[in-house]
Amino acid sequence: MVPRTAATQDDLRRHNRARLLRRLHEGGAASRSDLVAFSGLNRSTVGVLVSELAEVGLVTEVAGSAGQVGRPSLMVQPAADSAVVLAFDLRVERTVVALVGLGGNVLVRKEQRHKRTSYTPHAALRNVVTLTEQMLRQAPAQASWVGIGIGVPGIVDHADSRVRLAPNLGWADVPFGDMVRESLGAQYGFIPTVAISNDADLGAVAEHVRGVGARNRNLIYVSGEVGIGGGIIIDGRPMAGAGGYGGEVGHMVVNPEGVTCRCGAQGCWETEIGRDAILAAAGLGGDQVEVADVIAAASSGNRKAQAAIDAAGEWLGIGLANLVNLFNPEVIVLGGHLRLMFPLVSGTVFRRIHYALPATREQVRVEVPALMGDSTLLGAAETAFEDLLSDPIDVLSRSHHAVAS
Amino acid sequence: MVPRTAATQDDLRRHNRARLLRRLHEGGAASRSDLVAFSGLNRSTVGVLVSELAEVGLVTEVAGSAGQVGRPSLMVQPAADSAVVLAFDLRVERTVVALVGLGGNVLVRKEQRHKRTSYTPHAALRNVVTLTEQMLRQAPAQASWVGIGIGVPGIVDHADSRVRLAPNLGWADVPFGDMVRESLGAQYGFIPTVAISNDADLGAVAEHVRGVGARNRNLIYVSGEVGIGGGIIIDGRPMAGAGGYGGEVGHMVVNPEGVTCRCGAQGCWETEIGRDAILAAAGLGGDQVEVADVIAAASSGNRKAQAAIDAAGEWLGIGLANLVNLFNPEVIVLGGHLRLMFPLVSGTVFRRIHYALPATREQVRVEVPALMGDSTLLGAAETAFEDLLSDPIDVLSRSHHAVAS
Repeated sequence: MVPRTAATQDDLRRHNRARLLRRLHEGGAASRSDLVAFSGLNRSTVGVLVSELAEVGLVTEVAGSAGQVGRPSLMVQPAADSAVVLAFDLRVERTVVALVGLGGNVLVRKEQRHKRTSYTPHAALRNVVTLTEQMLRQAPAQASWVGIGIGVPGIVDHADSRVRLAPNLGWADVPFGDMVRESLGAQYGFIPTVAISNDADLGAVAEHVRGVGARNRNLIYVSGEVGIGGGIIIDGRPMAGAGGYGGEVGHMVVNPEGVTCRCGAQGCWETEIGRDAILAAAGLGGDQVEVADVIAAASSGNRKAQAAIDAAGEWLGIGLANLVNLFNPEVIVLGGHLRLMFPLVSGTVFRRIHYALPATREQVRVEVPALMGDSTLLGAAETAFEDLLSDPIDVLSRSHHAVAS
Repeated sequence: MVPRTAATQDDLRRHNRARLLRRLHEGGAASRSDLVAFSGLNRSTVGVLVSELAEVGLVTEVAGSAGQVGRPSLMVQPAADSAVVLAFDLRVERTVVALVGLGGNVLVRKEQRHKRTSYTPHAALRNVVTLTEQMLRQAPAQASWVGIGIGVPGIVDHADSRVRLAPNLGWADVPFGDMVRESLGAQYGFIPTVAISNDADLGAVAEHVRGVGARNRNLIYVSGEVGIGGGIIIDGRPMAGAGGYGGEVGHMVVNPEGVTCRCGAQGCWETEIGRDAILAAAGLGGDQVEVADVIAAASSGNRKAQAAIDAAGEWLGIGLANLVNLFNPEVIVLGGHLRLMFPLVSGTVFRRIHYALPATREQVRVEVPALMGDSTLLGAAETAFEDLLSDPIDVLSRSHHAVAS
């Protein structure tokens, strides 16, 4: 086994301060008593830590109510205007960006369409730099810019923020993290945290921190975009695997007699429930057609569209049953077009999940994302806050005062 | 997100003491300098913690050599005769038991055959109690008996040590942990740690701590017994899932056109690479025939046996490719009859794994267990030591002096 991390006196103080800030960021305002109960620390230690966080502006104390009769107690809350991050969701045909404050509030959000074919890494980089500038101009005065989180529809190496493969963007082996760091470093004379992640991994993080899985320690997010992506939370932590590539659910072979996938294997889950499979089965195609159109056609009685959705529902259920047996999650979240499809095929899906072992199937529920289409975007914000939340005072002191620039 | 655990001054000291003992238990003897380097603690703190552990007898300091020229340095080593556990591997047709000392040395090991049909939960309990008595009689004088770990070929609820289902033993919903605790409590007036686990989960633990995955943080152990079991280590920790049922790889559907599995689903991995599938395809059967016989027949030119092994090899590869894409492990360990089969089908297996995404397949290796047939047994010992390793002095003081009884 690999050594566990060291724990000294200093680490302990830093660790406890970080825990309190994370609790406030993820769970919202809390009284000092709440924080005592949450942390297991004594009241005076909590007081000191809260004061330290307040001194640097990360939290404020305001009169609130603990929900009981009597005089209102002071509530500690994260200061949304103290630290901000930029979150990007780089999709195949659209870029979404948000300026997000500590505590997870979206302060500004913007969406831009682009042509898939012309969205090269350099085009995307220019896009990120321009939007960063625009967003930071709208940041609160005195806010420190602590990070930037970016979701991409591809496989990302966690060690060096390199996009190994994003087939639907046509990217292969792109050091996108370094590109962003260099451009922003040159422009601002300061390099914030830059986190590049797979889009479905971020969907899982957001739904776990702020969505339908907020009370669960084991969650699987399955995204239906052009491809089928997966993000997996195990015992409260994102599952990465050896290189950060875990969770490639779309390339689980479910039908060895099926068609050849663009990955080279035969009968991947993606070849049965991905966008192209559904459009082809419905006899539809073209750049402007979406799974939503097939669903609309099916709902209005189009037999071929209905058959396409039904077939995809069967395969969706078969694959989900596998995930239930393999991971024993409390919740599976269906994003992208799977979210739209699910209401039409839930009966089929549950019938298939019923074939999972009783012990595992009894514990799982299937949900659509609470954050709807913004799971990836908000997950990107969480990864951008990660360094601050691990060591608040140190990271804040190194950060850029966005508005002052 | 669920609160992280509290960290106070006391926790810190306990935590550091536990880390040092775990390091010695898992990694073997080390000099104080090694422990300083390992822990990040200063020399005097390490000295105090080692003295505390030595005082209760858990470690000893002996003259050793750090491998350099010069006077030998003192080595701290775990005292195998200070704390012992009992480890059981309850198989379908055989019980294996071992008395294991701190540091992982097998002090005594014994194997007993039994009839599958008569191995009811109560028969197994009597077996465990009798063997416990025999083993403890052979324990070193002054050794404290700190726990008992038991592996079963079934699904175990981690919360209450209940065997939910062990189909090949014919057990359903058996509170085996409570049964063992009550019997031993009545007999010894003391209840040690009792850990009941799935056999493949224990195989994964043992190969991770002391076997082919000792340097890896992500490992999958696939056991081929009558059924196909799986144990999964993610980022250094066993993956449990919501109820401890994760890792049921045998019921991953790989062939939807395949035969019906005893779980009710069609085309589970187990129906293609489990013992019965291989025996049936080879045209062999009966209680006395094993996959080893098919392998022997295939090796000596029996065409039907060869075809059966080849077909199983293809399906083995398809399922492993799925696991590689889903989990991105550094190592997959093949136990049971898969261990015996692997040399004959490795070419096929690697050809199939080649269909996994490049990013994931490049990082994985496939191995046979370093601990051979004893992975489950030694994993059971590790789970029995877990409480002691989490809080050495406290747990030791509550433990039974086995030999004194």
